[in-house]
Amino acid sequence: MLRTHTCGELRLSDINKEITLSGWVQKSRDLGGMTFIDLRDRYGITQLVFNEDWDKALCAKARQLSREFVLQVTGTVIERESKNKNNPTGEIEIKVTQLKVLNDAVTPPFTIEDDTDGGDELRMKYRYLDLRRNTVRKNLELRHRLAIETRNYLDSKNFLEVETPVLIKSTPEGARDFVVPSRMNQGEFYALPQSPQTFKQLLMVAGFDRYYQIVKCFRDEDLRADRQPEFTQIDCEMSFVEQQDILDTFEGLIKHLFKKVKGIDIPHLPHMTYADAMKYYGNDKPDTRFEMKFVELNDLVKGKGFPVFDNATFVVGICAKGAADYTRKQIDELTEFVKRPQIGATGLVYARYNADGTIKSSVDKFYNEEELKKWATAFNAEAGDLILILAGEKEKTQKALSELRLEMGSRLGLRDKNKYSCLWVVDFPLLEWNENDTNLLESYRGRWVAKHHPFTSPKPEDIGKLKSNPGEVRANAYDMVINGVEIGGGSIRIYNRELQAQMFDLLGFTKEEAQEQFGFLMNAFEYGAPPHGGLAFGFDRLCSLFGGSDSIRDFIAFPKNNSGRDMMIDAPSAISDEQLKELSITSTVK
Amino acid sequence: MLRTHTCGELRLSDINKEITLSGWVQKSRDLGGMTFIDLRDRYGITQLVFNEDWDKALCAKARQLSREFVLQVTGTVIERESKNKNNPTGEIEIKVTQLKVLNDAVTPPFTIEDDTDGGDELRMKYRYLDLRRNTVRKNLELRHRLAIETRNYLDSKNFLEVETPVLIKSTPEGARDFVVPSRMNQGEFYALPQSPQTFKQLLMVAGFDRYYQIVKCFRDEDLRADRQPEFTQIDCEMSFVEQQDILDTFEGLIKHLFKKVKGIDIPHLPHMTYADAMKYYGNDKPDTRFEMKFVELNDLVKGKGFPVFDNATFVVGICAKGAADYTRKQIDELTEFVKRPQIGATGLVYARYNADGTIKSSVDKFYNEEELKKWATAFNAEAGDLILILAGEKEKTQKALSELRLEMGSRLGLRDKNKYSCLWVVDFPLLEWNENDTNLLESYRGRWVAKHHPFTSPKPEDIGKLKSNPGEVRANAYDMVINGVEIGGGSIRIYNRELQAQMFDLLGFTKEEAQEQFGFLMNAFEYGAPPHGGLAFGFDRLCSLFGGSDSIRDFIAFPKNNSGRDMMIDAPSAISDEQLKELSITSTVK
Repeated sequence: MLRTHTCGELRLSDINKEITLSGWVQKSRDLGGMTFIDLRDRYGITQLVFNEDWDKALCAKARQLSREFVLQVTGTVIERESKNKNNPTGEIEIKVTQLKVLNDAVTPPFTIEDDTDGGDELRMKYRYLDLRRNTVRKNLELRHRLAIETRNYLDSKNFLEVETPVLIKSTPEGARDFVVPSRMNQGEFYALPQSPQTFKQLLMVAGFDRYYQIVKCFRDEDLRADRQPEFTQIDCEMSFVEQQDILDTFEGLIKHLFKKVKGIDIPHLPHMTYADAMKYYGNDKPDTRFEMKFVELNDLVKGKGFPVFDNATFVVGICAKGAADYTRKQIDELTEFVKRPQIGATGLVYARYNADGTIKSSVDKFYNEEELKKWATAFNAEAGDLILILAGEKEKTQKALSELRLEMGSRLGLRDKNKYSCLWVVDFPLLEWNENDTNLLESYRGRWVAKHHPFTSPKPEDIGKLKSNPGEVRANAYDMVINGVEIGGGSIRIYNRELQAQMFDLLGFTKEEAQEQFGFLMNAFEYGAPPHGGLAFGFDRLCSLFGGSDSIRDFIAFPKNNSGRDMMIDAPSAISDEQLKELSITSTVK
Repeated sequence: MLRTHTCGELRLSDINKEITLSGWVQKSRDLGGMTFIDLRDRYGITQLVFNEDWDKALCAKARQLSREFVLQVTGTVIERESKNKNNPTGEIEIKVTQLKVLNDAVTPPFTIEDDTDGGDELRMKYRYLDLRRNTVRKNLELRHRLAIETRNYLDSKNFLEVETPVLIKSTPEGARDFVVPSRMNQGEFYALPQSPQTFKQLLMVAGFDRYYQIVKCFRDEDLRADRQPEFTQIDCEMSFVEQQDILDTFEGLIKHLFKKVKGIDIPHLPHMTYADAMKYYGNDKPDTRFEMKFVELNDLVKGKGFPVFDNATFVVGICAKGAADYTRKQIDELTEFVKRPQIGATGLVYARYNADGTIKSSVDKFYNEEELKKWATAFNAEAGDLILILAGEKEKTQKALSELRLEMGSRLGLRDKNKYSCLWVVDFPLLEWNENDTNLLESYRGRWVAKHHPFTSPKPEDIGKLKSNPGEVRANAYDMVINGVEIGGGSIRIYNRELQAQMFDLLGFTKEEAQEQFGFLMNAFEYGAPPHGGLAFGFDRLCSLFGGSDSIRDFIAFPKNNSGRDMMIDAPSAISDEQLKELSITSTVK
């Protein structure tokens, strides 16, 4: 080893030891005849000291070292005169006797500090320098720790980690696959898995009983802010279980992770139906760190001559506790907020419940004080509260009010990153109508698609409605939601060939398509398939949640940008004609 | 849960308990008025018993159950009359009171037994049934255990598991990449990593100090028996180390694995130079479970009128202890063996050192007894030994004799699968001349290629020969070899831009090609790169070694066949025109 110790471990108890350290120059200071250098490695920072009186040449050499030079130094541990209590090594320093420059460094394009001056693009391009920053490295250390603790927990519960293949078959089910041309099977393609779904189900058919994998998955979608073309899942499946067994097992996992990694005791996770989540939060992943539930007002507000409410199919509001003193300007901001195109409301109605007990609204022309009091009662509002109301088409209005609710939660300081509110959302619909999702292949638009995936079991009591009213069939499907983020989701699976075939039929597959793409799974169901179910956690998102960040990118060592490009290695890129020819493909791009 | 216990856990101490089990019918037997069913799950087998006297209808129902039906049964644990000491649950059985068929099963295409009647192709196609067999499942349980213990060891040594990207840039370096067309960056392609080599080096530049990953890698090569297009590596890298530090660390890993997983203490691993491995074993991955070293005979055998030896550039032999009594037929078999095209020798010369002290050879016409005695001395042969000699061009003859040595080792019972001989082979050549390796792109033939990879550091004392005599430059590269299998390999890396550029130049890259493909790495070396090195273990092969098998396929849940095809899901396959169009590619296959 080019060191006897790391830069994070020397203490007062090591005084007078002869040691060797290696690391990077974090910074250096010249003070009179002395030079101080902070030497950094992954484990910490240790101060080196050079003194002209001890060794003039060595001190001169030290003065020529710039930031990020790589050094190997030998010297003696001595006690510092002015101790730095903020640094675990801050009570000692190294009186250097030998100095070797292992490598020099040009000036980095941004500062290697917690608060850097580098912009996003620059830091992506020089990711190997960005990763030197404490904050970024700590994110990846957290990720490592979460992976270890996940494995510990699942191993203790008899789960086997099994690697499923990466080169599989394209079965787009609507979302786009990345594909890989095969050289040995010309004209044919592998696909990269969007999830190991069918393989983990086959492992259950194989009797593996409990499976997990921390595994890369791939989805060729138009990237939104918080998506990556390759992402990591904690993927799990269990046999001989009912829904509650899975919820219990993975509630156990999340409690274990919070306890081991953050020292936090999470209380029992409440269950909320999808229907309630939509009714009270307008959102299937409600942020339950705060209440501010939706109140539907149709009965109360219609027929009083206010055309906006009269013409709307849905009038719904929230009550922001203690926000009655919002100024006109603040309310205007909220109105602007809901009118932004991505939110799409046409306006905002408000009613202040003043401290003096009076209520003033933006629609006083149509509603008298008595009527407004009824509103207040509906919201359980008290003096000092602010009622905010949107109106329009139901689904759109729910979505807009959900955004406004989150905005008010943020403004009122109700979304503390260090507070965690976890729950299960259950009883999702089995299907949803796909009108125009551009992340699905065009041929999948204008038809029913699986809300979770085509292998999800409908609730037995709803199977009768599969033909007559597919939109109302509920699934044995569940999501774990923490602080308004969907952290994981799963379902009880179909394990019967006929029901699976019926499901593919409903999704618009011909018998031949279903057999060609998923015949292997349906065949497997004929050889003794056990009842089974599972779920997958989004590991990148779980890491960012634990790290208190909104961006998964901060928790991925080498992320891609919003165009799916790795800025550092400059991928994707053109490949040679020799490669294309061997793969029997040509590019249609000129 | 659809059970209170697994089929592997009930014991005498559970007598009289009311329990519920779920599992598969392994087999059933009707004996007079009783029916016995072996119920199987991952954890074991428990005997169920039905009796007409207890419940006639239930017994009749039990008689209709076929193999592989999935059952849920409730009943009472009772003591067996005739106990089965070979089964941990063999002292009890279940007096069944309730029986539910969770799923039925058609007859499997082969028997679900340790010794199955299913052929390879059939078992690949129905892999989910093959995985039900004890032997196959145990292989994957072993794999899980090895992964867990690998992580435990590396975690205890401060290694961080960091996930590197799967969608990277094509930098073929000779071997073929799998590529992935990009939809969002038309005309461009990602590649799947042959290894995370450059990323782990960048993590060292980033100061991560110790990295590992159990990671899928991909190589589009013409598949040989023991290769898979996707395979798993234990990939590791360390900073501020010299070669010996890496050898020590990973000798520690392999000892840990043998101890924890097999209960075996492995002695300190000897080091053998590549030159010695070739000289004494004709092979850079010598099976050192037995000696039988090569002895070179040029000086001893030339000039005696035997044209085969006189015309050969290289005459070399081995001494098979105690094989002097080999019959003519056995020796003919060996001659046939070395003359097989894949071995390619033209013939085999032998000399028997008989028990009576006489020596008889197949070339007595040219060599008298006195000369043959000198041969025997050269081999340290004793009465009872058999000397086997090959002659020809050096490299080819070494290779052929190495095969013969392994064959003799097998025939003499010297290659016990339960005995492990581990060593490091060190001082590999930096480069090798690639004449005609069809696993490399054509443009890489007829030139020097890196023996390990282009990032491997030459030995400092050999750098002077890089231009004058590249074939003689040794690298700081090493392989771990166990029982004649290369289990892992690695090197100390270049961490200096100029030397790396010189290396690319030597490998026939233009400056522009080097910059385009590896500019990100060479640039990174300018910002303070630490000395670093690492290695990767072939995890599939490690598992097969621990499992005592020659085939890695037995240790992969869903392997591909020799044409790179997944027989179960039938991949690769054609994709839709819609997909091709979106990816801006066309297939040139009609």
